[in-house]
Amino acid sequence: MRTLLLLTAAALLIGAAPAKKLPTPNDIVASAPASAWKAIPPDDLMVIDLRSGGRVVVQLAPDFAPVHVANIKALARGRHWDGATVYRVQDNYVAQWGLNDSGKPWPKDVVAKPPAEYTRPLNGLRITPLGSPDPYAPGAGFADGWPVAYSTKAGWANLAHCYASVGVGRDLSPDTGTGGELYAVIGHGPRQLDRNIALVGRVVDGIDRFSTLPRGTEALGFYKDKAQYVPIASIRIASDMQAGERPSYEYMDTASASFARYLELRANRHDDFYIRPAGGVDLCNVQVPVRKRP
Amino acid sequence: MRTLLLLTAAALLIGAAPAKKLPTPNDIVASAPASAWKAIPPDDLMVIDLRSGGRVVVQLAPDFAPVHVANIKALARGRHWDGATVYRVQDNYVAQWGLNDSGKPWPKDVVAKPPAEYTRPLNGLRITPLGSPDPYAPGAGFADGWPVAYSTKAGWANLAHCYASVGVGRDLSPDTGTGGELYAVIGHGPRQLDRNIALVGRVVDGIDRFSTLPRGTEALGFYKDKAQYVPIASIRIASDMQAGERPSYEYMDTASASFARYLELRANRHDDFYIRPAGGVDLCNVQVPVRKRP
Repeated sequence: MRTLLLLTAAALLIGAAPAKKLPTPNDIVASAPASAWKAIPPDDLMVIDLRSGGRVVVQLAPDFAPVHVANIKALARGRHWDGATVYRVQDNYVAQWGLNDSGKPWPKDVVAKPPAEYTRPLNGLRITPLGSPDPYAPGAGFADGWPVAYSTKAGWANLAHCYASVGVGRDLSPDTGTGGELYAVIGHGPRQLDRNIALVGRVVDGIDRFSTLPRGTEALGFYKDKAQYVPIASIRIASDMQAGERPSYEYMDTASASFARYLELRANRHDDFYIRPAGGVDLCNVQVPVRKRP
Repeated sequence: MRTLLLLTAAALLIGAAPAKKLPTPNDIVASAPASAWKAIPPDDLMVIDLRSGGRVVVQLAPDFAPVHVANIKALARGRHWDGATVYRVQDNYVAQWGLNDSGKPWPKDVVAKPPAEYTRPLNGLRITPLGSPDPYAPGAGFADGWPVAYSTKAGWANLAHCYASVGVGRDLSPDTGTGGELYAVIGHGPRQLDRNIALVGRVVDGIDRFSTLPRGTEALGFYKDKAQYVPIASIRIASDMQAGERPSYEYMDTASASFARYLELRANRHDDFYIRPAGGVDLCNVQVPVRKRP
């Protein structure tokens, strides 16, 4: 009984002790060669320190939303976010932060009306196809570490809204937001937002600092009282931090053989726990491996 | 600026004020006739009161996992869960509760080795098809208020693992778990678990009581110290509560015209905010409407 229930709990997840021939997805991650990993440039890491002490690290995606990402760097470097808070947390949807209606002028390098970087040309991306149907686009897969949807025929690609994706709050179209107000997905991937809003990256560490925040009780998850706002101590770009205190991460190259195998095993789970491999997987359930560098 | 940023935030979600001809999904919910709603029988509602004061209400699914659901009712009625806690919370995956390895004997009506209620016959279900491809099964849709996957050819159907789904922790197959240890999904729907484990229901109220809990730092999200366990004051079936204190809920009949319209609009968002309706939706993003009854 003792053992049984421990296993009951333990077996519920991926990493449960496998005494098996076929590797698990985690085995692939653990054994992937150094060549299967790509370092995230420190200039593409945004480090958000909460006043409570928690840290959230975001990988920015300049190849998908260059103007918005440049804005975000200018906002961080211009200390625009001094006094920023998390002011909206909606269950199974998003946590949102920034200055929320402060009226503060933008730092000078900020483009006030960025273009609608909701898609980019498919051309130039090396796509590893998902291999399963996607309800939101003709194609889905991975490009340079990112989950993407695309149309070969129309020639566009977009970052997909998955758990921990980071996007730009905006007003009604044609406004696209500057990047001053950002959100992170803390629930089931709201793919309906794909191609309707600019995604600029993903949380690679500390998403639980957002996902565990109390939900706001006002419409759309806004906090009712400003006293509930969660203060942010600083938002920095890692390349601006002292070399010794910079966090550093790497992601699995989605064009690598390791990733191809990982993807195959995520779609066909053979861990001891599973009795019926699905034979398919949805884009947001693949979860491109990202880890801290030593 | 003031207005702009307020809208920026507000427009990020579904309910943003539409000045539009086409209704939003929320409009459909608000205007659906009484005949489009079905009350959840009080005998199918499990009420979990945390010692901290929060309440989580689970709708049980006896039509999909009758033996496990009967066990759960016997466990609640036999006060098996006195002293139960939430002892595992894994980010973007599950919160799990029960007695975790207590060795306590089951109440007498509990079936110690239930059958593998991972699927049920498709026959007897009235399916409203999703209308979009599903990576996990030949078919996907809704039956009696539940998101389901199915195979017309093979004749099975299963409840789908979506946000807030509730399932039964188990040991390695052929063990199926009794229902003594339960989990709720608090992240992107882990559909790979479909047909590999018994789902017994879904949280219809208070899922944020689980999703905001601190994540466990041990493997698989187990809390390291018992001091971190989140105490549960009581787990009751609503029909055993005094009529005056019973919570009561209703869900939208998934065979109704209102639901058909809601589903169509979830796949083709025309709210002012959206500029490109997806033309498709994944099963877990539809979110069958459930609400408190007056």
